[in-house]
Amino acid sequence: FGQPCSIQKNLYLQLQESMLSSASGFKNYRGILNWCVVMLVLSNARLFLENLLRYGILVDPIQVVSLFLKDPYSWPAACLVIVSNVFIFVALYTERKLAMGSISEKVGLLIYIFNLTVILCFPMVVVLKLPSITPVGGAFALGVYTILFLKLYSYKDVNRWCRERTQVKALSNTMTSDDRRTYMYYFVFAPTLCYELNFPRSESIRMGFLLRRLFEMVGNCTLFNSVKPVFILQEMDYSRMTERLLRLAVPNHLIWLIFFYCFFHSSMNFVAELLRFGDREFYRDWWNSETITYFWQNWNIPVHKWCLRHFYKPLLRRGAGKLLSQSAVFFASAFFHEYLVSVPLRMFRLWAFMGMMAQLPLAWFVARFLRGNYGNAAVWLSLIIGQPIAVLMYVHDYYVTHCQDDPTITEAL
Amino acid sequence: FGQPCSIQKNLYLQLQESMLSSASGFKNYRGILNWCVVMLVLSNARLFLENLLRYGILVDPIQVVSLFLKDPYSWPAACLVIVSNVFIFVALYTERKLAMGSISEKVGLLIYIFNLTVILCFPMVVVLKLPSITPVGGAFALGVYTILFLKLYSYKDVNRWCRERTQVKALSNTMTSDDRRTYMYYFVFAPTLCYELNFPRSESIRMGFLLRRLFEMVGNCTLFNSVKPVFILQEMDYSRMTERLLRLAVPNHLIWLIFFYCFFHSSMNFVAELLRFGDREFYRDWWNSETITYFWQNWNIPVHKWCLRHFYKPLLRRGAGKLLSQSAVFFASAFFHEYLVSVPLRMFRLWAFMGMMAQLPLAWFVARFLRGNYGNAAVWLSLIIGQPIAVLMYVHDYYVTHCQDDPTITEAL
Repeated sequence: FGQPCSIQKNLYLQLQESMLSSASGFKNYRGILNWCVVMLVLSNARLFLENLLRYGILVDPIQVVSLFLKDPYSWPAACLVIVSNVFIFVALYTERKLAMGSISEKVGLLIYIFNLTVILCFPMVVVLKLPSITPVGGAFALGVYTILFLKLYSYKDVNRWCRERTQVKALSNTMTSDDRRTYMYYFVFAPTLCYELNFPRSESIRMGFLLRRLFEMVGNCTLFNSVKPVFILQEMDYSRMTERLLRLAVPNHLIWLIFFYCFFHSSMNFVAELLRFGDREFYRDWWNSETITYFWQNWNIPVHKWCLRHFYKPLLRRGAGKLLSQSAVFFASAFFHEYLVSVPLRMFRLWAFMGMMAQLPLAWFVARFLRGNYGNAAVWLSLIIGQPIAVLMYVHDYYVTHCQDDPTITEAL
Repeated sequence: FGQPCSIQKNLYLQLQESMLSSASGFKNYRGILNWCVVMLVLSNARLFLENLLRYGILVDPIQVVSLFLKDPYSWPAACLVIVSNVFIFVALYTERKLAMGSISEKVGLLIYIFNLTVILCFPMVVVLKLPSITPVGGAFALGVYTILFLKLYSYKDVNRWCRERTQVKALSNTMTSDDRRTYMYYFVFAPTLCYELNFPRSESIRMGFLLRRLFEMVGNCTLFNSVKPVFILQEMDYSRMTERLLRLAVPNHLIWLIFFYCFFHSSMNFVAELLRFGDREFYRDWWNSETITYFWQNWNIPVHKWCLRHFYKPLLRRGAGKLLSQSAVFFASAFFHEYLVSVPLRMFRLWAFMGMMAQLPLAWFVARFLRGNYGNAAVWLSLIIGQPIAVLMYVHDYYVTHCQDDPTITEAL
């Protein structure tokens, strides 16, 4: 039915899908990201205003800093970080000797293995034995050492590959040891874990870009204070526990998102801009992940690239299967997650380890049964729900072992 | 500095920007949209669980329905909607006479003008004079009449254009009056305001699509209940008022977003799928708007298309300037906004009208001073803050005129 009209004056209507329908294939939602930022800033402004109206200006910034560091006159974590220079110099010296041919490849490898093992064990022993280190300080120091471990491992591998294949041995003699040291420290501070003989460099430092990132970092730090997770851990039944978990999940997730933006976008770009470091791919579009695997491959690109180059591909080259190598990467990642959580808290509960290992069956399940936007929603759900479960476990255990007899802390929790 | 290496084994690092930097040009954030949905559903689930734990099952759905309709035995709004058929038949009859040539174009136009004027005035008079119509019922009835007004205006225009240009007069005689009536009612129920002699049709009804949209509509209705704006309107100073406004802004904005999704995506697609109506462009990517103008041109496509075809372009053809025509469209839109709010509330305060007219200088300001993501953030801000200001104005005035002497309502507000 319907009448034909030979000259349709304005052919406005045509066969097409709505943009929000997945069938439309439309994917540009940059504005939604801006919406999230505006909502976050607005909520924060409201909270700030409310607190100001209710309590006046209460926070003394110096008090906050001293509260974080507890005892500002003995900084064991900072000392640990300063000591880490020793290991950098050991690697530098070993590499120089190897390049000159003063020591054999075997001796060099042994020194490297020893050096790398000590990098992992030394801070662990210090944190476990020194009661004056706070969990935050311990986690920070261990984080620095872990990053250094990965960097020096990459340094060792790349230099060996180049020695094996080219005339670097001859060339490297033209470099002074000053040049070597400068380049090594550039690599140590550069936002990457993969060593290269020539890093891509940007042309100049853009002041506007630098200031925007700095502004974001400061802004996000104040945001951290406004998002407060609620821990209430009395004995309770399952439905009540679910309710608590959901209540914990949202602020915990927001903290994680702010941390991600602050660390992987603002800070890393800030450092990269300062160093004119060209490769800014610190993350890819993990927010569009439709499988768990895609998420793990794209949210933390420096670690992903390191794993691929120095762990996964070498395993494949030595004849290991694909699934085995993948599982090994997850296993190593689980180890480091546990290392960075258990040691500073001085509690070995394996929740972080198990959380990482649980990703394997979860990844299989999502890839097998869910597609497209449903897969994406499953990835988000695993992030929003999965993390607070692990956090809740640690907080619960920390509470049970440390604070049960202290009524003030019990109340605060 | 840096050593050259002729065979770079894995050239991992290369000059590139981070995806979240606007310089990268990356725009695929479909995942963020899914994140919003997951967060919304989770928050709702938590709230539901919390209420269930605290109060048990309290809500009696029949009670809710009767509360909305107040007096289920006299439905004045529903009666008004049924009466609207009269105006449809007048238009149908006039058009038939015109097509047959029984009446002249002038007489036809006069009948149309009379019909359209009555469509706008009749429900207004009824709502204002009949105290039994609730504000919700009144707004619904006026909304239906406004849509009908726009549809019949388009019907009149398109038929005239076709008569002027083609042999429809002859052709239309082959159509029975039954066919005409069916097609007219198809147009009345179709999710468009622009009449065409041949609507684009989809091939079949997809049951899965239909069920998903139905599920969304039901889900969103329960969401509406969980988002509760807070109105507290005692005498207060400006900083306190700002704090209240911000507190009102977020839930109000969420309600608007849910309304948008529910009406423009779920419901319209549902109806379109049922009617096999092909053109599903009910909105475009207004979430990426970088100017106010872009937002108004893209958030409500049926009205935008109608305005363009039956108001803006005819004005241009009659020699009006671009700016004048644009302002005229905003003026008409402001009139209808005021009409749909003031009449059901029986309060003529011009807040909605002024809110719409304020868009003109705002649009100029944003286009002049802000670009890219900053412009987008400004559009979001005007949505999040602008609406609740208008809502607050009306609620405040409604409170002052209606409920000041009634202690129970004062408390509820």
